[in-house]
Parts: sequence; C-alpha cells; structure tokens
Amino acid sequence: MVPRYSRPDMTAIWTPENRFRIWFEIEAHATDALAELGVVPKEAAAALWAWWNTNPAIDVAAIDAIEAVTKHDVIAFLTWVADNVGDQARFMHQGMTSSDVLDTALAVQLAQASDLLIADIDALLVVLERRAREHKMTPTIGRSHGIHAEPVTFGLKMAQAHAEFARNRARLVAAREDVATCAISGAVGTFANIDPVVEAHVAEKLGLTVEPVSTQVIPRDRHAMFFATLGVIASSIERLATEVRHLQRTEVLEAEEFFSPGQKGSSAMPHKRNPVLTENLTGLARMVRGYVTPALENVALWHERDISHSSVERYIGPDATITLDFALQRLTGVMDKLVVYPARMEKNLSKMGGLVHSQRVLLALTQAGVSREDSYRLVQRNAMKVWDSDGALSLMELLKADPEVTAALSVAEIEDKFDLGYHLKHVDTIFARVFGNS
Amino acid sequence: MVPRYSRPDMTAIWTPENRFRIWFEIEAHATDALAELGVVPKEAAAALWAWWNTNPAIDVAAIDAIEAVTKHDVIAFLTWVADNVGDQARFMHQGMTSSDVLDTALAVQLAQASDLLIADIDALLVVLERRAREHKMTPTIGRSHGIHAEPVTFGLKMAQAHAEFARNRARLVAAREDVATCAISGAVGTFANIDPVVEAHVAEKLGLTVEPVSTQVIPRDRHAMFFATLGVIASSIERLATEVRHLQRTEVLEAEEFFSPGQKGSSAMPHKRNPVLTENLTGLARMVRGYVTPALENVALWHERDISHSSVERYIGPDATITLDFALQRLTGVMDKLVVYPARMEKNLSKMGGLVHSQRVLLALTQAGVSREDSYRLVQRNAMKVWDSDGALSLMELLKADPEVTAALSVAEIEDKFDLGYHLKHVDTIFARVFGNS
Amino acid sequence: MVPRYSRPDMTAIWTPENRFRIWFEIEAHATDALAELGVVPKEAAAALWAWWNTNPAIDVAAIDAIEAVTKHDVIAFLTWVADNVGDQARFMHQGMTSSDVLDTALAVQLAQASDLLIADIDALLVVLERRAREHKMTPTIGRSHGIHAEPVTFGLKMAQAHAEFARNRARLVAAREDVATCAISGAVGTFANIDPVVEAHVAEKLGLTVEPVSTQVIPRDRHAMFFATLGVIASSIERLATEVRHLQRTEVLEAEEFFSPGQKGSSAMPHKRNPVLTENLTGLARMVRGYVTPALENVALWHERDISHSSVERYIGPDATITLDFALQRLTGVMDKLVVYPARMEKNLSKMGGLVHSQRVLLALTQAGVSREDSYRLVQRNAMKVWDSDGALSLMELLKADPEVTAALSVAEIEDKFDLGYHLKHVDTIFARVFGNS
Amino acid sequence: MVPRYSRPDMTAIWTPENRFRIWFEIEAHATDALAELGVVPKEAAAALWAWWNTNPAIDVAAIDAIEAVTKHDVIAFLTWVADNVGDQARFMHQGMTSSDVLDTALAVQLAQASDLLIADIDALLVVLERRAREHKMTPTIGRSHGIHAEPVTFGLKMAQAHAEFARNRARLVAAREDVATCAISGAVGTFANIDPVVEAHVAEKLGLTVEPVSTQVIPRDRHAMFFATLGVIASSIERLATEVRHLQRTEVLEAEEFFSPGQKGSSAMPHKRNPVLTENLTGLARMVRGYVTPALENVALWHERDISHSSVERYIGPDATITLDFALQRLTGVMDKLVVYPARMEKNLSKMGGLVHSQRVLLALTQAGVSREDSYRLVQRNAMKVWDSDGALSLMELLKADPEVTAALSVAEIEDKFDLGYHLKHVDTIFARVFGNS
Repeated sequence: MVPRYSRPDMTAIWTPENRFRIWFEIEAHATDALAELGVVPKEAAAALWAWWNTNPAIDVAAIDAIEAVTKHDVIAFLTWVADNVGDQARFMHQGMTSSDVLDTALAVQLAQASDLLIADIDALLVVLERRAREHKMTPTIGRSHGIHAEPVTFGLKMAQAHAEFARNRARLVAAREDVATCAISGAVGTFANIDPVVEAHVAEKLGLTVEPVSTQVIPRDRHAMFFATLGVIASSIERLATEVRHLQRTEVLEAEEFFSPGQKGSSAMPHKRNPVLTENLTGLARMVRGYVTPALENVALWHERDISHSSVERYIGPDATITLDFALQRLTGVMDKLVVYPARMEKNLSKMGGLVHSQRVLLALTQAGVSREDSYRLVQRNAMKVWDSDGALSLMELLKADPEVTAALSVAEIEDKFDLGYHLKHVDTIFARVFGNS
Repeated sequence: MVPRYSRPDMTAIWTPENRFRIWFEIEAHATDALAELGVVPKEAAAALWAWWNTNPAIDVAAIDAIEAVTKHDVIAFLTWVADNVGDQARFMHQGMTSSDVLDTALAVQLAQASDLLIADIDALLVVLERRAREHKMTPTIGRSHGIHAEPVTFGLKMAQAHAEFARNRARLVAAREDVATCAISGAVGTFANIDPVVEAHVAEKLGLTVEPVSTQVIPRDRHAMFFATLGVIASSIERLATEVRHLQRTEVLEAEEFFSPGQKGSSAMPHKRNPVLTENLTGLARMVRGYVTPALENVALWHERDISHSSVERYIGPDATITLDFALQRLTGVMDKLVVYPARMEKNLSKMGGLVHSQRVLLALTQAGVSREDSYRLVQRNAMKVWDSDGALSLMELLKADPEVTAALSVAEIEDKFDLGYHLKHVDTIFARVFGNS
Repeated sequence: MVPRYSRPDMTAIWTPENRFRIWFEIEAHATDALAELGVVPKEAAAALWAWWNTNPAIDVAAIDAIEAVTKHDVIAFLTWVADNVGDQARFMHQGMTSSDVLDTALAVQLAQASDLLIADIDALLVVLERRAREHKMTPTIGRSHGIHAEPVTFGLKMAQAHAEFARNRARLVAAREDVATCAISGAVGTFANIDPVVEAHVAEKLGLTVEPVSTQVIPRDRHAMFFATLGVIASSIERLATEVRHLQRTEVLEAEEFFSPGQKGSSAMPHKRNPVLTENLTGLARMVRGYVTPALENVALWHERDISHSSVERYIGPDATITLDFALQRLTGVMDKLVVYPARMEKNLSKMGGLVHSQRVLLALTQAGVSREDSYRLVQRNAMKVWDSDGALSLMELLKADPEVTAALSVAEIEDKFDLGYHLKHVDTIFARVFGNS
Repeated sequence: MVPRYSRPDMTAIWTPENRFRIWFEIEAHATDALAELGVVPKEAAAALWAWWNTNPAIDVAAIDAIEAVTKHDVIAFLTWVADNVGDQARFMHQGMTSSDVLDTALAVQLAQASDLLIADIDALLVVLERRAREHKMTPTIGRSHGIHAEPVTFGLKMAQAHAEFARNRARLVAAREDVATCAISGAVGTFANIDPVVEAHVAEKLGLTVEPVSTQVIPRDRHAMFFATLGVIASSIERLATEVRHLQRTEVLEAEEFFSPGQKGSSAMPHKRNPVLTENLTGLARMVRGYVTPALENVALWHERDISHSSVERYIGPDATITLDFALQRLTGVMDKLVVYPARMEKNLSKMGGLVHSQRVLLALTQAGVSREDSYRLVQRNAMKVWDSDGALSLMELLKADPEVTAALSVAEIEDKFDLGYHLKHVDTIFARVFGNS
C-alpha cells in the first residue's frame, strides 16, 4: 500500500480495527446460533453483545502483544475479548476453527471493497456518458496503427469506454458474488463440532451466501477469480489512460489533462504540461495486473489447506483493491476535467489532404464497375502522392486529374465522396446501443 | 502448441482450414445482407454460396502464396476466393475492413473452443460425482499444513473438487458469452460504409451477439476476461493434481494414478510408480496461467486499434485452449481410473495415536466447566507426548491417566470422544449441497 | 511455436532429430568414459561410434512408436539405438538415469539457442551503430511524457538502443553460462552407480561445465534465470519497437518502417502505411515475457525432483527462444531499413515556437541574479502563451517583449539562448562512451 | 509493504528521510562539481554543506505540504532546502532535471538494498554449510516424484541448497552492478546545461558507475534485470521452503520447524505443529515473483521517458526488497533451528523393503550378462510385489527366491547390492565441489 495512491474509504476496510470488528461479529452471531441450538448458554451470547453495545475501542496493540506470545492471531483476539467480556466469553468460538473466522471475515472485506469499486465504476460511467453526449458529434480522426484512418467522433471514443466499463461493472458484480461466501464448518470442513445451522445464521447476518463445501478454508479459486477480474479492469484503465496520453502528445494535442494553476510540469522546463495522471494510471494498472498471478498460484493449497495463501492475501487484499479504487477515482477525475480541443481535432482531421476519404472512393470505383484490384491500385497511387507530400497535395484534386479515375467517376461524384457527415450517420445507432434510447 | 499435449478436436478449430471456412461464411452472410439492402447484386451472394456448396477444398498453400506478395492475410484470402468464384466475387467484403472478418472469426473459434472446454468440464464433473458417491463414507485423515487434522472422507474431497469445477463451468459459460460477439462495423467502427443490418445478420447466422460499439476491432477486455478465466480453471486443475501427487507419496500412498502394464516408471529404478500425469498437469497449469498476462497486456491498444494483440493471439488462442482441453481430459482420465486404497487411509488415520480427536476432548473439557485456556493446556500437554512418540502412545490412554483431565471428564466420557462416526454425521448435508438431494 | 514467427536455424535446434542426436552423443561419450574406467567393454563404445559414423537417419516415428508402449522417452530411444547397434548397446546408459540425458541435452540445446541469440544481438548492434553514426548529428526533438522537451539527435536515440542491447548481450552471455552445465550423476545425484569422471568427460566433450551438485536433475534456478533474461531482452525490443511506432504516427512521421512495393496497408483504406512490424514486435515481446513466470514456478520441484517442469520446458524451450530469435532478426531488419525523415524532424522541432529553449532562458535568468522561483514564473508565463497558441507565437519574441525579462537579460543574451548547437555539444562524449573513441 | 513481513534495516532504506538525504547529497555533490567548474559560486556549495553538517532533521511533513501545491516532488524538496539554507541555495540543481536526482537516488537505494540482501544470503550460506557438514553422512531417502528413489544424505540436500544460493549471490552481485549507475545528464540526457564532469563527480562520491547514455532517465532494462533476479531468488526460497514442508508432513516427519514453548499450532486442534514459517515463505515467494512482470513492463517507456514506471517503483522498490530481505532472514532462522530426525529418516529409508536398491540389482544383472530388457523385467516383477505389500515383503528375499535371478547372481552377490554405504561414497566429492576442499 502506497499512501499517495490510497483513499481513506478503501484503506479503512483493511485496518486491523475493521478486521477485528468483523471477527467479533462473526463470533457473536455464531454464539447466538450456538445458544439457540442449546450448545452454549444464551447468557454467553448476551454477554458478548452487551459488551459490544458499549461500542468498545479495538485495542490493536493489546491484541498484537498477545499474538507475540501465542503466535496465533485468532487465539490472541479471543483472549483479548475474553479479557474484556469475562467468563461468559469462554463459550465463544465453540467448535469453530480459526479459518472459519479468517476466511469469512476476508469475504466480508472483499464484499465491502467490491461495493466501493462498483460505486467507483458507477461514478466513472456517469462522467463517461456526460462526456460522450457532450462530444457526440465532435468529429475527430479515427486512427488504426497510430495512422489516420477515417473520421469518428470524440463522443464515440467515450461511448466505447463506457461500454467497456459497463462490462467491467458486470464482471465485478459477478466476482463479488463469487467471493462473498461464509464458511463456519470446523477444522476440516465436516461440521464435526458445529452444526451447519450456525454457518447459515452467520451468513445471513453478514449478507453472505453459504459455502457449499469448504475444507478448512474457503476454496481459493473464488479469490483467484476476484483478483483476475480486478486485473481486467486495470487493463481497461490502462487503455483509456493510454488514449489520453496519445491525445495529449505535442503533435496531436486534441485533449489535455486539466492543469491546475500553480502546478509545475518540469523543474527544468517551464513550458511543459505533461499527462502525468494518465501515465501514473498506466503504472498503477501494471501493479494491479501483477497481483493476478500470485492469486492464481494461491489456488493449489495442499490437502484441506496450507497457509501459503495468507501472506499473499495480506499484500494483495489491500494493495489490489486500494490501488484499483484510487485508479478508478483518478481516472474519473481525469475524464471529468479533460480539456477537449475540437478545433485541433478538426485541424488534424483535415491535415492529410483528404486521405481519410480514400475508402469511399475505392467503393465508388468498384460500384462503377472497376475491378476491386484496379480500384485499389488507382486510389493507392494517388494516396501515396498525398502521403509523401505530408498533406500538401489534395487527394480529391489528384483524383480529378487522374484519367483512369475520371473514366469511371464524374467530378461531382468524386467530390461527393469527401463528405464528413457521411461517416457520422450511424452515431445515433451506436449511442442507442450503449446508452439506450433515452 | 505441443503435439503431445493436444487433442485433434481442439486442434482442428485452430487450423487454417477452419479459420478460412469461418472467414468465408462471414463474407458470404455479409454479402447476403448487402444484397438484401440492394448494395450489391443478389447474384453476387448467390455465386458465393453456389461455389461453397460444391464443398471446395481450402487451398491454404495458394492463399499463403498470395499473402507472401500482398503481406495482408485477408486480401490474400479474398483474392483466392475471387480466383475461384469469378467476377461476382468483387462485391464481396463491400464496406468491410479486415478486422470485421478477423475478429468475428476469432469470436467463432473461441466459442467453438469454449464448447469443447465446457464439455470437458462436464465429463470431469460426471467422474468426480461418481468417485464422490463411491467413496462418500470412506474415512481418511483431513490434513491442514500437511499435518493430520481430523477425519474427513475421500468422497468429500471429490465433492469439493466437483463444486470447484462446477464454479469453473459457470465462469467459462460467462467467459464464452463475453467473447462471442460479432463486429461488422468498418474501418473505425462507424458503419460509414456498411449498414448495421449486415452485422446483425451475420451475428445471428453465426450464433453471436452484436458488439455494441467496436472501434476497428472488438475490444480486447473481452478476450482478457476469457483467458483470465482459463487461468483460474488451470489453477483448479493444479489443485486437484497436487492432491493426487500428495496422496501417492510413498509414505502416504492412499491413492495412485493407474499404472498400465508395460509402463516403466524409471529407466534406472524398476520399482518406481510415479504420479507423472498429475505432475504433468501441474506444469500444464503453469503454462495456461502464463498466457493470462499477455492477454491482459493486449487490452490497451492504441486509439481505434493497433495490431500488437494479433501475434499474441496467434500463440495463446490455440495454446491456451488446446493445453487446457488436453489437461481437462487428462485430469478426467486420472480421476476416473485413480486407484484408491481405503485400507491405507484407515491405517494412516489411526497412526497418530488418536491425536485427531484432540479437539473433541478440548470442547468436552470446556463444556465441563474448565476454562478454555486450561482445557487447551491440558490437551496440548498430552498431545505433545503422543506426537513425540511418533504415534506409539495413545492420546486416550494418556488422558485417562491425567488427573486434571479426569477431574472434569469420566473415563466413559473420554472414550466417547474417540468415535470416528462423530466426524461424518454431516456428510449427507454437504453432499446434498453439492449434488442436490437426488 | 507459430511458424510465421520462426526461423529455420532456431527451429532446427528444437527438432526431435537434434534432440536425439544430442542424446546419442551424451550416451556415447559416457560409454567412452565408462569403457576407460573398465566398467563396460571398449567394444561397446566402439560399436556405438561405428554406427554413428555411418551417419544414420534418426527415425523419429520408430522411437515414438516404442514410447507409445513404454511411456518413457529415454527408454524408447535406447531401445531404438539397441535395435540398430545390436548387442553391444546393452552397456549404454550404465548407471545413468534418464534425467542425466534429458537435462544435459537441454543444456546443449539452450547453449545452441544462446549462440544464435547472441549472434542476433551482434547483428542488431552493427545496424544500430551504423544508424547512430549516420544520424549522429541529425537534430530531433527529445520528448518526455510525449511532450516536446529539448533537442537531441536521432543518432543519440540509436546510441541509447545500442547501449541497451550491449547490456542485453552481456546478460545473455551470463545466462548461457548459467544454464550450460552437464549432470551425469545418477538417480538422485549421488554418483552411486556412475563415477564422476564420466560426467567430467561428457561435459568437456560437449563444451559444458560440470554441475557441482545435482539431485536427479540440474537445478531449475539456472533455467529460471535464463528465461528471465530473455524476458528482459524482449522488453528492450518492445521499447525500441514502441519508439518506431511513435515516430511513424501520422502527426509525427519522423521515421517509417520500409514499405515494400506491392504491400497493402489496409484492405479498406488504400492510403495506409502502418508500422505493423513494430506492432508485431510489441506483441511478441509480451509472449516472451509471459514465459518468465512459468520458468520461475519451475524452480520449486519436490525433493530430488518432480517432473512438472518438463511440460513447461517443452513449450517455453522452443517458444521463447524461437520467438526471441525471430523478434531480434525482425527488429534488425526494421532498424536497418528504417526510413528516416530529417526534414520532418526539423519541422517538428521548430513547431513549438522555441519552447524547447525554455530551460536555457531559465538558467540565464537565475545566473543573472533573478531568484529561481521568479525565473520559473517569468519563463512559464510566456511559455504558456506560446503553448496555447499552438506554436503560432514565438517564445523568443515574447521574452524580448517582457520587461521583467529584459530587466535581467539583453536582447542579444535572449537570442543567444535559442541556439540548437548548444544542445549537441556533448554528443561526441556520449558516442565515445557507447562506441569507444574509434 | 506489510509490517509483519518487514525488518527495520531494509525498511529504513525506503523511508522519505533516507530518500531526501540521498537527494541532498546528490544535489550538494553536484553543486561542488559545478562550483569547481566555475558555473556556480563556491559559496553556494559551502552553504549547502555547512547546513548539512548541522545534521538537520528532515521535515517530511513540510516537504509534503509544499508538494501539495507544486505537485512536483523535487521542486518541493528544493524549495524546502532553500527555505533552510537561504539565498545560496538558488544555485543548487543548476542545469539538472528532476530525474537526475530521482533516478540516481533510486540507484543508491537499490544498491543499499542489494547490500543487505547479499548479507542476508551470506548469513544463509553460513547456516546451510553448517547444517550440511553436521548431516554430511546422515542417510535419508532421496525422492523423485515424491516416491522413494535411492539413498542420499541430509547433508547433500543442504549442500544443494548452498550451491543454489551461492549462485543467487553471484546473480545479485551482478544485478547490483547493473542498477548502481548515476545519471546527471539533464532534461533529455544531452548534458546541454550541465557538464558531464558533474555526473562523474557525483557517481564517484556515491559509489556508482556513470550511466553511459541516459535519456531523461536511467534506462529501465537495468531495473527489470534487478527485479527479475529477485524473482529467481524468491523461487529458490520457495524450493527450500517446500522441501521443509514436505519433510514435516505427518507421514514423513524427518524434520520440523522449531516450535517454541507457548506457541499454538491450531486454535481448535491442540495436537498440531505446523510448518507455518515455510508455508509463509512460499506465499512471500509468490509476491516477489509477482513484482517481476511490472518491472519488465516498465522498460518500454515512451521516447526519452514517460513517468509510468514511477508508481510501479514506489510499490516494488520497497515491497520486493523488504519482502525478500524478510524472507531470506526467516529462511535462515528456519534452517538454523530446523529440528532434524535422523532416526525417522532411517526408519523411512528402510520401510520400502529394500526397493531403493533395485537399480544396483538391475546393473548387476546386466553386468552378469542378462539383457537390459530381461534384467528390468526381473527386477520390476519382484519390486512390484514389495510395492504392493506396502513394504512388508523384502526385495532381497524375493530376489533370492527367484530362480531366474539366482541363475545370474549368487546369494552373496545379491546381498552385496543392499549396502547403504555404496550410495554415499561420493559425498566427499560433491562436498568438495560445493564447499572447497577445506
């Protein structure tokens, strides 16, 4: 966890305090169910909640001190609770194993983290839709291979990003569901010492589903899927960040990250305005992706469990969710305030001497009866001249002067092919697909 | 692709022949729709299908030869079709761009591959359920950290694997849906030169959904999610393979891969019977996982597309699906024929001098009024003696001889705690969760 | 292995024929040493070499057929050799284990592959030095964050790449040394049944060093280091490829991949000339990087060995070396024929209205006694005007009109700061560092 | 960074205080050189050192507060220094760019971290050599595929680990050298505003080598190689940790992590003693490996630099070195205190009814003139009986009762083949290779 790439809401989920609070709730709800079953006295459960209702501070240092002796975190926690609650606390954790607490608590934390991340994506989607509608008909050049291809609109770029993050939202909802399970099944998952009713009760209270079959632990394919999904989302962030970085290049400059007064782009070069936020997002995406493989390696635990996954999760639980949360919020900020330059887009669009209309001419020639191969050759030979002139020559003029072309197409027909509006006629269709018909 | 880790059904999907067949179908269906729109003559579409209905062989060498000149695969293919179909072929590909063909074809291939993989998982699930029911009540020691914990049954191990692969099946179905989209939207996704109706027609004919907004390409977050899902499945394979490897260890030997007559375990040591299939699966899992990161790196293409994803997909499209298909089938074979040794399981289970029952004694002591801390201390001090004796001492006998224990529990109560059946009473519950109540 | 990304020289190393040839040489050299020790008859060794000197074809199909029965590749090979050599062959492989053959052969293959890769880098270094010297003094804008910074030369870019690949060469030499070891130490590495003299003899004959302590296998940290090194080299390829892709962008167009006559950039857009080779290299780099993690996961084999590494190496042995070899050669071709546009570089360099000289003015102001903070403010306020004008305004003219600036610097002093030569005065120094003083 | 997996020595390297101290030293040494060149007044350098010699506390909060406004870390730092040093500080950083400071400082930090890691490995090597010599002749079964193979000694296992970590030490020394370079070359690496003499001076003072050609930054292939090397070392840690985990399995129990009094293995099962440290190391290895790919992805920065690498390095710089440092120390502790059970090793060694001697019998039969195939068949048929008896039958006795065997070998010859000492005769040779002849 790097403080500068962390937001308090997400960080709070991963504090010892929050973890211990969840642990307590699991233990107390379990004690309720055990009391209901008659396994432990109802007074035991009552004593736990009575203390809890005093809203006691979680004394992390005290718990850590006990763990330094016992070398076992759950036992340390239980000891600390017993020190506070008194004798009735001895009925707590009856028939349970540490992993019942640890794994169920992790599920709660991951569900909490998911909820923040889903909200992050929702906020991003709102911004993307606004920018999409704002620039729905702002023409700009579409580029394949970094080379001018044909016109699109800036709104379409935003709509594409919206559709991609809408998919990511759906994936995240599925990943949350995958990981939000409760296991209170005892040392090897057999419920030998604890009735399955307890598990069902705790699950319901915490908003989790019941893990159908656990060993000692909740199976780690669930977590692997969760972190893999975060890796996909991070890659989408990288994609949009890379788009902004390209648009802000000096020679392109069709959009710019907002540059606040007082900000300095470079200590040495006062003229610089750099896309540092999106470059930063590119790096953050690498990190979130880097956490996928350790999560995948965590799946193959030995037999009913080993604890190798635990240290990995102490890193990637916080690091992946905190980093992704920060990155999504940063991306939302960048897109929200992105300074868009339609005039520059238009200038770039027209700089290639009309080359972007080459395909329409090609189609017109074939429709006029010229073979596909000949059509391609005719257009390419004129296009290459324009290309080599760095946009000084005009494709339309060259075509009008090419007798093989004019043998098939009239001057008016040629001119008709250089109409920008032609390219934008289905923008409505695409917007309706992405945003609905509202 | 490594031939020895490949099955013909999956390999066939990735042959040039299959790819070119799909390309043709995309082009021909698109021509149908274009003809319906009046953009091209109906004769053009008819000519394509007329040739196709002669079931022509795909001359891969001829297409490759054309590509060697044009350095463009789709143009090479179109030229070859035109050479065969004749003049009417010039209307083909009208308003389309290469990626319309390439990406839609890849979607078809990935859908085909998914169908095989889903069938693979289904076959594995059948075997796992059979082995689970067969050994539903076969007791065996559950192990955490590789150390004996408490009893489970071998059927529970199989049920756990079944539940995990059932989850993987659901994930794969979702991944298939994610990736099975059709884009026929032209050079930058604007439908400038082709009506969206064509896309809808081709999608329907090929069993795909329409890509809501493409650029030049189908967005690669879809493929990233697909390959990430394969990585999760591979990790589950590694988990079950690792279980078998552990069970076959000389000192454990509770199960063994089937060893066929004539097979040699070692060129030097004639006595060896090695778990080579599951070790092999462990390695194959590493490979499928290794393809996840390149797929994630493919997402951030530049602007409306660059072609860096293409070479990656030429590797991982075949390699990931072929390897996973092989691995799933191999795993199914291993589990199907796995030789299970219940007698050895029982022997191992009892070798620890009853230590596996320590928790029940602990619970009984606390329920008899001994504090949790004291109970733990009492059990642990006797358990450690058994441990140090390498199972020669009996926990039950030691407890019966410990006055602090007998002060709380009668001999009969102590003996009652060493009952194996106690641990298996909820196996039915778990089986019902995993397999339903049938 | 993808045929289109493979060269015959490297592919040949990974054929079954080459592997079996190396196996034979290991066995025959070992038999020589065993005969010298008196363990086997000298006639046995002589018989092996006598047959080998007939230059027999390697009948891969026959060996495969035997393996289909024995399910053991080395035994299959030995059986096939025995079928050809006759009775004397029974002394072959005395005291050896399969891994002695397999691992030593892999070491030979990786050394052979390294030699090709080192030669590839050498060829690339020659080209990079030539292009560096050719454009040693060709001015071009240096960019940080994709934004114009200060002038460099195109030769410096090439020199940087040269230095990077020279480092990669040294790393590869070290990786080759790491992996080129010979182990003939028997079933668990104790030389129980074979004298260490045999290992030393085979190592010397094959140009390998002796593995100081093997288990059954050569330890896989060596291979991990090897493949990790390939991953670093691939990343350097990606860096140079990305540079070319950027330079070829329509708006930049300072360099272009060579575009051969007859080549088609796009089936739909005849005007396109795309940097497809360097985009392809970007994808290939992802693949070679993707092989690093499986190689790292191969290190932790169980006890004296398990065979999980083997399947991984069947993929990445060929795939990583073949892909990297192809990529290095492709990169060399791209750099060799790269079309460089100095005029366009100059045009881009001057398009920012002199902003690239902002730092020098900043320094001059501070040296003239203005505080650093004030100097920065003065330059930035003028630079931002130029920036916002899209290069239409001139920084020099604005500075000359700014009274706060002219209070510190004379007009002549200001003009002196806009000298391009100033930036290139240490190019010789850098070239001497990279290429020596020749 | 996870506190529980961190040691203060390494953590100290990554504190803001240490970073700012290095920054200051770079700036002050550079000012010295600039003063020597006459570019800045000697009083400026003197003023910096005069303040520094007062051993001022680094006010991180103050620097952070300035950065919150400037959004530029180096400018914030320089401003803070100027606030403390006064007017003379304005000559600091003359002609330098932020990356000159940042990258050179990172090089110093990575060199410091390397020194700790090298010391860690040295400490581990000492322990491994001690345990190797202690158990040089302690027989134990060697296992391939987890199956008993032939005898080795526990000392050989330690010697193997020693050799592996000695290789890792050499790799780390090389990686340190790769990464410990100094770049003071200005905004785009041309030394336009700063003489190369400054770089040479700072490099010498800080114990770094001069970066031959930088852009704005030190090229990231160096860092990629560094972190890749850490990934290899982590994988070796995983290997040795996995060995211990296997040895501690209940059924094997040939060695155990030291279990301190008061420690609790399980909250539910008082009898447990789990290899939690080595399981933990397995997880930590996954993390360090996970940082390799982001480091590789950092290489391909755009043009003369983008800043995407920076956020990655803020994570992996500390996280990879701190985690690896902790892991190496933990591993050293585990190996130092590892409880080894030679009696159990001997018991396991003999439990297979002599199967471990099967190869020697095989060799003896072939040397007695039986064909290799027949020899294999004879040994295998008896070995399989022993295997199926779970060690109840004795291979030696079965062979003595097999007429086909006794036709070739006398009873005395058979018995001679079951000698443990036979397997250990070359232990000295191997130890001499690993530890020298001392």
